[in-house]
Amino acid sequence: MRIKEVYVYMFSLVVVLWIFRNSVQGRSLPLSLPRPLPDSAAAFARWLVSESSWGVLNTIAGDLGGAPFGNVVSFSDGLPDKGSGIPYFYLTTLDPTARYALKDQRSSFTVSEYPIGTCGKTDPENPTCSKITLTGKLKLGNPDEAEYAQTALFTKHPEMKDWPKDHNFQIFKLEVENIFMINWFGGPKPLTVDEYLHTKM
Amino acid sequence: MRIKEVYVYMFSLVVVLWIFRNSVQGRSLPLSLPRPLPDSAAAFARWLVSESSWGVLNTIAGDLGGAPFGNVVSFSDGLPDKGSGIPYFYLTTLDPTARYALKDQRSSFTVSEYPIGTCGKTDPENPTCSKITLTGKLKLGNPDEAEYAQTALFTKHPEMKDWPKDHNFQIFKLEVENIFMINWFGGPKPLTVDEYLHTKM
Repeated sequence: MRIKEVYVYMFSLVVVLWIFRNSVQGRSLPLSLPRPLPDSAAAFARWLVSESSWGVLNTIAGDLGGAPFGNVVSFSDGLPDKGSGIPYFYLTTLDPTARYALKDQRSSFTVSEYPIGTCGKTDPENPTCSKITLTGKLKLGNPDEAEYAQTALFTKHPEMKDWPKDHNFQIFKLEVENIFMINWFGGPKPLTVDEYLHTKM
Repeated sequence: MRIKEVYVYMFSLVVVLWIFRNSVQGRSLPLSLPRPLPDSAAAFARWLVSESSWGVLNTIAGDLGGAPFGNVVSFSDGLPDKGSGIPYFYLTTLDPTARYALKDQRSSFTVSEYPIGTCGKTDPENPTCSKITLTGKLKLGNPDEAEYAQTALFTKHPEMKDWPKDHNFQIFKLEVENIFMINWFGGPKPLTVDEYLHTKM
């Protein structure tokens, strides 16, 4: 190669690396929907839930003095780009979270924007890196929504369909009663459950 | 360029991209300590906490019917590669989590290996993608550990030192009483708080 070709080579390498870095940092899948403006609270909340694939599901641990017990879980609120806002889970009573929920339904589910990759170098606790906590009741899914929920879960989490049958995984859902979302300065965004569930994505 | 040079160019580009992808997927910083073997429960738990920079902190929400309330927070358990196992937080009572803790100290803190980037394509709920929940009491930090905790926090979260003074951020710590960690098949790893706190990293 001549000197000029080496320069062209190096330059194109740097450009490709830069593009690649920005596309994968913090997540393995490309972002499918654009990030709404922070002032559109309902649309933003639905975007954050829809773009996320996991979070921390919190229940009351009766065997730990009633402590609030968080557990990392995968979830889905619908097919990609077609989220319903209602988080569905695939849980087994071999795990404490499902057992706790069957005794005491009080629950919350917390998701951070940070692992999506759109916070850049902003700290995960900075209010401009958004976070949402849905509080409500964690219940077994109804039979009439089982097919919808299972398709939603298995599409976003393909390995779930091969999880051990004898673990008796069951579909749970969070019936949302309260929403706490911070996506900018100035404290949590006022947002009702009705606004959240009925906004257009 | 001749054909041969084009092949060399393409091949080296693919190799560099592959290396780069594996180095940044899921996190922006290089992993500083190697991942312990799953059977080394105490060392593994300390590694997971030390390598993480954020998680979900749970408290009891008195104003939401006593529901468990998870909140995304940043934390530090010490300087990089010198973690103590005790998570320190920088919280303001403008946020509900600090207010809840001052009324009811029961708390847990949950961290997933997934955002560290070492789970690869494994699902976040798969037991081989590790997760830890430390349950205990969330308390204001003692004056004699304030300097240590602040250095630990500000080193891992540089922007914290510039957060608004009038928000009165204070150092909190979780006094760990129980450890729930899954890092392989077969359920949570037996691990006492004493083993966790006194293992060598």
